[in-house]
Amino acid sequence: MAVAGALAELESLLGSRLARSAADRALHGQNETWFPALPPDAVAYPETTEEVARIVTVCARHHCPVVAWGAGTSLEGHALAAEGGVTLDFTRMDRLLDIRAGDMQAVVQPGLTREALNTGLRATGLMFPIDPGANATLGGMAATRASGTTAVRYGTMRDNVMALQVVLADGRVIRTGSGARKSSAGYDLTGLFVGSEGTLGLITELTLRLHGQPEAISAAVCAFERFEAAVETVIATIQLGIPMARIEFVDETTAAIFNAANGTALPVRPHLMVEFHGSEQSVGEDARRFGDLVAEMGGAAFAWASGAEERTRLWKMRHGAYGAALASRPGAMGLVTDICVPISRLAEAVRETRADIAASGIPGPILGHVGDGNFHAILLVDRGDPEALRTAKALARRMAERALALGGTMTGEHGVGMGKKDLMAMEHADAWDVMARIKGALDPEGILNPGKLVERRQ
Amino acid sequence: MAVAGALAELESLLGSRLARSAADRALHGQNETWFPALPPDAVAYPETTEEVARIVTVCARHHCPVVAWGAGTSLEGHALAAEGGVTLDFTRMDRLLDIRAGDMQAVVQPGLTREALNTGLRATGLMFPIDPGANATLGGMAATRASGTTAVRYGTMRDNVMALQVVLADGRVIRTGSGARKSSAGYDLTGLFVGSEGTLGLITELTLRLHGQPEAISAAVCAFERFEAAVETVIATIQLGIPMARIEFVDETTAAIFNAANGTALPVRPHLMVEFHGSEQSVGEDARRFGDLVAEMGGAAFAWASGAEERTRLWKMRHGAYGAALASRPGAMGLVTDICVPISRLAEAVRETRADIAASGIPGPILGHVGDGNFHAILLVDRGDPEALRTAKALARRMAERALALGGTMTGEHGVGMGKKDLMAMEHADAWDVMARIKGALDPEGILNPGKLVERRQ
Repeated sequence: MAVAGALAELESLLGSRLARSAADRALHGQNETWFPALPPDAVAYPETTEEVARIVTVCARHHCPVVAWGAGTSLEGHALAAEGGVTLDFTRMDRLLDIRAGDMQAVVQPGLTREALNTGLRATGLMFPIDPGANATLGGMAATRASGTTAVRYGTMRDNVMALQVVLADGRVIRTGSGARKSSAGYDLTGLFVGSEGTLGLITELTLRLHGQPEAISAAVCAFERFEAAVETVIATIQLGIPMARIEFVDETTAAIFNAANGTALPVRPHLMVEFHGSEQSVGEDARRFGDLVAEMGGAAFAWASGAEERTRLWKMRHGAYGAALASRPGAMGLVTDICVPISRLAEAVRETRADIAASGIPGPILGHVGDGNFHAILLVDRGDPEALRTAKALARRMAERALALGGTMTGEHGVGMGKKDLMAMEHADAWDVMARIKGALDPEGILNPGKLVERRQ
Repeated sequence: MAVAGALAELESLLGSRLARSAADRALHGQNETWFPALPPDAVAYPETTEEVARIVTVCARHHCPVVAWGAGTSLEGHALAAEGGVTLDFTRMDRLLDIRAGDMQAVVQPGLTREALNTGLRATGLMFPIDPGANATLGGMAATRASGTTAVRYGTMRDNVMALQVVLADGRVIRTGSGARKSSAGYDLTGLFVGSEGTLGLITELTLRLHGQPEAISAAVCAFERFEAAVETVIATIQLGIPMARIEFVDETTAAIFNAANGTALPVRPHLMVEFHGSEQSVGEDARRFGDLVAEMGGAAFAWASGAEERTRLWKMRHGAYGAALASRPGAMGLVTDICVPISRLAEAVRETRADIAASGIPGPILGHVGDGNFHAILLVDRGDPEALRTAKALARRMAERALALGGTMTGEHGVGMGKKDLMAMEHADAWDVMARIKGALDPEGILNPGKLVERRQ
């Protein structure tokens, strides 16, 4: 058997850093949502790029699948071993290699988490703002083109990865990009590997763009009678050019879930949570203009969180939404899905999604990064209720179809993985075949994260 | 002969819109720099995407090269017919198809120029800020990943192209991206086609990101005794987070050329030209902080251009640098080359380049978009002096080597084309082979802009 041959060789290469125990395999066969367990045959813990290259070379020779594992926080089954094989856990490659303060860049290994990076940057006056909520690894965030609450201001991983070191399917090591802020020296390979979900190569080093820690930060939460008013406020904020660092929508169901989980007393109504970054002066000005707008739109219960502690509580609550939603319905698992539409179609997309969820009978709080037109539904499905799971999947599919009909995309940030592969042809038509051709050119044997994102072409 | 067969079919398809006259061919075999003429066998003037697809299908069947032509303003011979064939001139596909003001997007055909787009946007309060100097077509700007003076604030074409329609080498038409501000639905094909220089497909429609016209604009030019002080001012401006919309360096040679061409009386010293965009208040604040910094760095002769006319004159002078440089030495042609380095290495890169040019005896004004670490040398070579051309090429090569040694890239914005193909292996090593594999997967017959950017793999 192909895998057995690879494992024997890898064992002699890695010793105890090739784990074959049931516990290790099970841990790397899990995910945070509804996908059934798909454990690998073994878990490798590489320590250097050269070791990753050697592992991939061995696996290539034996046609053994190779799956990358960061923190396991992705939501579409990206890191599951769909066809078995070896999972590479990047825990031991978690160093902050270099801070180039003058160039506002950091060089990191893929297993470093975003929180650890920001801890390492604290004294420099710089930060890495991309914030998907979970304390994901930077390698995983690049591989899935993560974004989150701050993308409205700082962009996504696409905009903040400047250069990569990548191990190809044949074991060769390449570098893409450079330390320069821009380049027109050929195809944008950095951009190609960002978001490729481990199907084109394994990221072993990243050069990231850093940003200055803002001199002043101001955050607020405010309630609206109707969700339409909240969404219209977002659109008006964008059109007035008020520079938001974050602008999050949560619906009334989410507000109730927050109250139950955090002991808060938010009105059970739709809310916006916002944050401004800048100088004392500009933040004050932005907050004032935004406040005026909210008043005009009939928003109420406006509460500013100017202290750091209060702000931390606010965003911790927001980031804890998924856990709080699961806790609100014991025995349930979450099918978390996201879409992204042009801002002008956001109200329509939210309205139709709300109605669709309400009609389904499945609890489904809605919340999202509305400054980008991106929102999520957390569909709560009782474990062992296959009918409810089918209903939730159908809801998610209709959300994706709705996003496409409105000129958007079936996923703004969660990615394709296993969960949305069957929607790719619908979104991309022949462009999905272009992706398959690229996959075939870079991984002809199909050993890199098989079963995800593309169909294999023979 | 392969081309003859294609031309016969295309003539019956396009009638008089397939031009075979010597004049038409010569016009499309020219370039703005030093490359010898390379005319195509014929020039096609398509009017629709479907027509482009039909042309490519015919050419594919006959293995006839296909070259895209926008405004012909590229600087590395991108649009020359290196192996003959058919050049597609997009002049007749120059419509502004849609302005989506609410989403701050415009949909355009590839032959529309950036100035025509901004004229069309004037009444909307929106603008497309990417400004490579020349009035290039938006299709060409996307294909070469253009940037220019405003990239320091607004990014490059990579950051401002949201979606594309592309005709592939087999005549299929695909769409990449969407109207959503972000997506994680698979490989970033938009980013792959942007900067691919017509070697992977022909762009037939673009969805562009627009920006609000700034409420206030302020521009200034100031002289420095030493170029190092100018460069240090740029670095300090970035590190203080003063948001520049433009920050341009010109050396003393360029200042003298400006004076001769424009009747100005700039001190013959290094200069910075800057511009700030924002509210009246923020622009005033930015200008004040920048002014303080310049004073600290010993800058002098600080002149603000607050009126629109004065500003237009300033940037027209800047954009006219190449023409003015050519005019300064009758009978000369320009070998214009650019590199881009991390900001922290910029002073070093400029210093060494100045010394190298001075030692060569070739006139070579230096100027550039220093906020990105990107600068140009205009090497003036007398026509009919092959020795001078060899010297200039060697200088350009050493500039590229210097950029790589400093952690940068051999071209920040001019691209690869024919001029820098022989440097690609040096910058990318095995990653250039990855580009060739992608090229092979999408254009197996090698009909799309052959001889540019990649080596053909057989």
